[in-house]
Amino acid sequence: MRVLGVDPGLTRCGIGVVEGGRGRQVRLIAVGVVRSPATEPTAERLLYLQTELDTWLDRFQPDAIAVEQVFADVNVASVMHTMQASAIPLLAAARRGLPVELHTPTSVKAAVTGSGRADKAQVTAMVTRILRMESAPKPADAADALAIAICHLWQGAATNRLQDAARAEQARLRAAVAR
Amino acid sequence: MRVLGVDPGLTRCGIGVVEGGRGRQVRLIAVGVVRSPATEPTAERLLYLQTELDTWLDRFQPDAIAVEQVFADVNVASVMHTMQASAIPLLAAARRGLPVELHTPTSVKAAVTGSGRADKAQVTAMVTRILRMESAPKPADAADALAIAICHLWQGAATNRLQDAARAEQARLRAAVAR
Repeated sequence: MRVLGVDPGLTRCGIGVVEGGRGRQVRLIAVGVVRSPATEPTAERLLYLQTELDTWLDRFQPDAIAVEQVFADVNVASVMHTMQASAIPLLAAARRGLPVELHTPTSVKAAVTGSGRADKAQVTAMVTRILRMESAPKPADAADALAIAICHLWQGAATNRLQDAARAEQARLRAAVAR
Repeated sequence: MRVLGVDPGLTRCGIGVVEGGRGRQVRLIAVGVVRSPATEPTAERLLYLQTELDTWLDRFQPDAIAVEQVFADVNVASVMHTMQASAIPLLAAARRGLPVELHTPTSVKAAVTGSGRADKAQVTAMVTRILRMESAPKPADAADALAIAICHLWQGAATNRLQDAARAEQARLRAAVAR
């Protein structure tokens, strides 16, 4: 299972690709940041991000896309760009028929650090450790994109484990009733 | 000069096409609304809007796109969808090399009614009158899209008139200096 995580933005959009192994094992495939200058028109910046993201998707062929959910609670002007940017991975997923999910910042932090209130430094430190990287991914947007992908992978794995347990329990009950 | 106006949204996205004539003359070409059910995933709704907008652009071949600017001052959840939806016409414009501009709700209202604080009913009434329509365009999103296109057309015309006047004045001064 390979997941491409996106920390959406126009000035800096973090993109990270990870692959799940057995249990909670997870491997770094690629990480980077797509930047576009604030002096360019928004429309051109959105198209540039779309073109770059398509290159990542073609190259790394993920099984799913995970995007950090944006909330309008900070700077309105920059939030608008972030929200517009978040449409790009959603569109890409729909066009390619890939599953896509939004993850809240709290659930991403909780998944990698154990606390929904962890700061950026803690998230970066845990991502570096989880992926056994020699140095911390920079900038923070790159580390965040990896954290989002890891969160998606582990939540999916947890959901699968729960579904497996539920299925086993149902089978056990059916067998008991049949007896 | 033909302008396609967009009142962005996922549940209802208004689209209106108008064409400018001499002075402030303006002609209705087409108007409609793209709807998508809130029960569908956001990614699918964005892709549907993109597909529909592309059909409009192919069919009506506008010279410019005008989009209503969204502000994050009302309902956060619905504003997120509106902002994501506003990325679609921007992307389309960048992809097709068409000029695109955002217009604030205040400037759109002021352009068609003379007051930046006009209500929806006034905007609809003025759009109906300006375009000599037999009945008011419905829903309000359709009327808004036409208002945005008209605003763009008239602002462009006013800018052109100012530029023409400035050019004429410069020519007059150069002639006076040369004499």
